[in-house]
Amino acid sequence: MTQRLVLHEDPCSGNCHKIVLTAALLGLPLERVQYDITRGETRTPEFLATVNANGRIPVLQVDDRFLPESNAACWYLADGTALVPADRFARADMLRWMFFEQYNHEPNVATLRYWLHILGEDNLSEAQRGQLAAKRAAGDAALALMDEHLATRDWFVGDGATLADIVLYPYTSASGQGGFALGDYPAIGRWLARLGKLPGFVAMS
Amino acid sequence: MTQRLVLHEDPCSGNCHKIVLTAALLGLPLERVQYDITRGETRTPEFLATVNANGRIPVLQVDDRFLPESNAACWYLADGTALVPADRFARADMLRWMFFEQYNHEPNVATLRYWLHILGEDNLSEAQRGQLAAKRAAGDAALALMDEHLATRDWFVGDGATLADIVLYPYTSASGQGGFALGDYPAIGRWLARLGKLPGFVAMS
Repeated sequence: MTQRLVLHEDPCSGNCHKIVLTAALLGLPLERVQYDITRGETRTPEFLATVNANGRIPVLQVDDRFLPESNAACWYLADGTALVPADRFARADMLRWMFFEQYNHEPNVATLRYWLHILGEDNLSEAQRGQLAAKRAAGDAALALMDEHLATRDWFVGDGATLADIVLYPYTSASGQGGFALGDYPAIGRWLARLGKLPGFVAMS
Repeated sequence: MTQRLVLHEDPCSGNCHKIVLTAALLGLPLERVQYDITRGETRTPEFLATVNANGRIPVLQVDDRFLPESNAACWYLADGTALVPADRFARADMLRWMFFEQYNHEPNVATLRYWLHILGEDNLSEAQRGQLAAKRAAGDAALALMDEHLATRDWFVGDGATLADIVLYPYTSASGQGGFALGDYPAIGRWLARLGKLPGFVAMS
């Protein structure tokens, strides 16, 4: 790949770490431009006009084109490599876990970390407080499903690490900051350790 | 494809319609097994043990293997066809809109339809009522982003329909049932009409 790759990111974001981790495991150089989402730096008119009209990071810049959505950026980097299975069913099954991550995992596991660890419980709105119990239950359900799946497997799909493992890693590894008890999920613990030993692995800043 | 394809579905679900629509546009025969999610038919021990441990439909069965997550099922059916772009950036950009659909669109646009049209406003919990305003605002933001994108394009990615269009179609076309005013989004209206004219198109039951 001879393109210029620039990651527009907030280093506290697990969604950004997915892309950093994918690039690191593939040995791809990434330039990095940092924003602080708690200061609204991704909602400025300039950001909305040039980087992402959706006002969110991460965004992967490929030369002069911009690709929002963390899992799509990981796919772009890994397309054609061993991190995306060559088998048709396995490739779709990997995407199944990537959609699970965005629908069942991130809105619960990552959101509780953001609310409780980054914003702080005292600063939550009434509407946010009203969702704490439901997000706790849904986050634990997502972790329990992962733990059950990993009880008999080393990786989510097939015999080696794929993007399914990479995109589920950051917010699972940081879930203790959202009040989740990773000790309740021993297969997840073994999988996190396994992934942390892959050549090129980098931890979240 | 010589495999047996069985869709485990609830015909009221837009997530199921995505898969029906993909198969119809590709001319693939689908067997269909129906469940009523409002009666808990996807949470029975048998369903959890054989079809999907996550207790959700749709699930695409390919011979004796089961693939949850609607967008992953669409990918499986369309992989290698014109509904998935051959260009690397365009393929990732299509996935970008598919992740947007699951993260920004479905939890707001589809959930309000489910709460207001299927469950009924009088039957909502206090916690659900507390989220109505936020989901209305987030759903309108998702529709506005789509409308802005489509103002200068016929399709989400490239020059023809892709899975990005197909997965965004069902809940956008049904968004009036969730109280959204599609008349406010003229480019979306033109795009819905355009998609409805594709050869093989089938509407939601």
